[in-house]
Amino acid sequence: MANVPQDKRILSIQSHVVAGYVGNKAASFPLQLLGWEVDAALTVSFSNHTVRITGYGRWGGSKFDAAHLEDVFSALDANGLLRQSHVLTGYVPGADALKVVVRAVDRLRAVNPKLVYVLDPVMGDDGRIYVSESVIPIYKALLPRATCATPNYFEAELLTDVKILDASSLKAALKTFHERYRLPNIVISAVSLPTAELEALGFSLADGSSTIPAGTNRMLVCSGSTIVSAPGDPIESVAFGVAFPELAEHYEGVGDVFSSLVAGRFPCYSDPAFAAHPVSPLAHTVELAIASLQGILARTRAHALSLANNRPEMIVPREGESADERVRRLRTVELRLVQSHQEILNPTVQYRAVRFDS
Amino acid sequence: MANVPQDKRILSIQSHVVAGYVGNKAASFPLQLLGWEVDAALTVSFSNHTVRITGYGRWGGSKFDAAHLEDVFSALDANGLLRQSHVLTGYVPGADALKVVVRAVDRLRAVNPKLVYVLDPVMGDDGRIYVSESVIPIYKALLPRATCATPNYFEAELLTDVKILDASSLKAALKTFHERYRLPNIVISAVSLPTAELEALGFSLADGSSTIPAGTNRMLVCSGSTIVSAPGDPIESVAFGVAFPELAEHYEGVGDVFSSLVAGRFPCYSDPAFAAHPVSPLAHTVELAIASLQGILARTRAHALSLANNRPEMIVPREGESADERVRRLRTVELRLVQSHQEILNPTVQYRAVRFDS
Repeated sequence: MANVPQDKRILSIQSHVVAGYVGNKAASFPLQLLGWEVDAALTVSFSNHTVRITGYGRWGGSKFDAAHLEDVFSALDANGLLRQSHVLTGYVPGADALKVVVRAVDRLRAVNPKLVYVLDPVMGDDGRIYVSESVIPIYKALLPRATCATPNYFEAELLTDVKILDASSLKAALKTFHERYRLPNIVISAVSLPTAELEALGFSLADGSSTIPAGTNRMLVCSGSTIVSAPGDPIESVAFGVAFPELAEHYEGVGDVFSSLVAGRFPCYSDPAFAAHPVSPLAHTVELAIASLQGILARTRAHALSLANNRPEMIVPREGESADERVRRLRTVELRLVQSHQEILNPTVQYRAVRFDS
Repeated sequence: MANVPQDKRILSIQSHVVAGYVGNKAASFPLQLLGWEVDAALTVSFSNHTVRITGYGRWGGSKFDAAHLEDVFSALDANGLLRQSHVLTGYVPGADALKVVVRAVDRLRAVNPKLVYVLDPVMGDDGRIYVSESVIPIYKALLPRATCATPNYFEAELLTDVKILDASSLKAALKTFHERYRLPNIVISAVSLPTAELEALGFSLADGSSTIPAGTNRMLVCSGSTIVSAPGDPIESVAFGVAFPELAEHYEGVGDVFSSLVAGRFPCYSDPAFAAHPVSPLAHTVELAIASLQGILARTRAHALSLANNRPEMIVPREGESADERVRRLRTVELRLVQSHQEILNPTVQYRAVRFDS
């Protein structure tokens, strides 16, 4: 009955949408299916995902302000309900709200010094920022508090000032997270690199890991790195990548499912499957997360095609698409998350981690 | 790709809490596990459940006003996202917000004339109303729109003006829902009756269904009824009850899990398991819902006892309990929902429906 931190209880601070899967709607079900108590704190309450370029474009609802979040966290604290073992933060649209999140993380760690914090610094994608730019310095202040961060390549560039163009700049970006922020674990969710650069990273034509399969766009690399040196010593790290094919369609919420799977399968060093992995425990986490996502996406794509009478061109964004056409396509490609028990619980690992040279 | 209603897509309009399981937090996971796409529209966003007498007593967050809900439903409609096969409504704290829900239900039925609407008229319990009394006439206007309602005994009394004291008044209350509101299906979640009245309903000492098992408070009866006559004919109905033992502890959110299970397992007349049930398809639904809940509660109780060093008195509300003691107990008895895959997916039916004489 003591007020001790609970195993497998995660505070997930993200958006809510009524329909579709982004933010907490994308994160909660996979985590719950994996056995986590998910305490879902909401940063917005919208009808659907809102991203202007790739999303529905029209939506209803509202953002929560900093005062609302402060009120919610204070009440949780008063009730002894801020004692999670893990915290995951995602889309927080404004600087004031993000400052409240910083204080909540500090309070969680005061209650539980072993807190695992997975930070998804949701700021933008493909060269475009979709939050207030004033959050960037706050994310830089948050990173030293995190156990692991899961930026996409664009967010990684914003946070490291490294432009990720090739094998060496990718490795430099990973190292920068360790050196600049003392971040013990970093995962950059997906980077597109030329085939020669994939081979420079250790992916090979021989095993197919640098070859683009038919029907897919290109190979993406999900990369990660863990500090392995003792605190105070010069930083040494083990970096790796998992190469996987990108589908031609655009699916919303993939990054949010990915960060939830990284959090939900974050290395448990007492679990032999993690400890015995030939590259690193984090590489095992990432292999499982990528495998689950690939399974969810395969199921989603098959369902979308069945709705579209097996016409692949109907589920791909196209130039000149009208608002109604776009909305219809988006409904068709919403993630098939609740149908993917097996893919979430027992994913088939097809893409293996390759250790990077330092 | 047409804008047609989707099978197994439910709009669930209820509260949200960060920690613990009431409202949509209680409803979403069971429904998702059963394969439903759950579009969760939120009526409040609170830190935790709030009921003053039985709940945490302190909380943070806020209610959504009617304008927010209207904005959310309008946007869903504009995006073709109001095309659910089912709708479930629960806690809606104010009359203005409930009026918006009425319009949303009408819109859903206009899009999908076969809409199944499960209405949980959340107003109060054990003689105490915890919403604005102005919602009562609106629930009375909503009932004729519903396919099934799931009031507790107190809400059933408020809506029928029948005081449920014995076998005959329970049957009269069920009939009143059919006659006054033309409601095709009614489930009254739990009524406590003297043993003689249980036997008058058809429960017997011989099969143990009127005997109170050791370690439990009393037998409760979950009752239901379905209209079986053709529209226009004098109303004929088939009523039944399932008797089950009430645990000594108080668990919050049980009613919300129950209504979600009734909605999630609502009679599918094309499914032989429902059509072949010896009492009625609705009786099969209720047997399964009660069985899942009993399983979840058994798991929850065992976990609570393990946290309380196997001292049963520590998990029961007691006279003179301090605010801190109450909060500690409440944390201990939060439902073990995400651990209950088997209980939700494949419940073991222990308590069978008994058909009531008319």
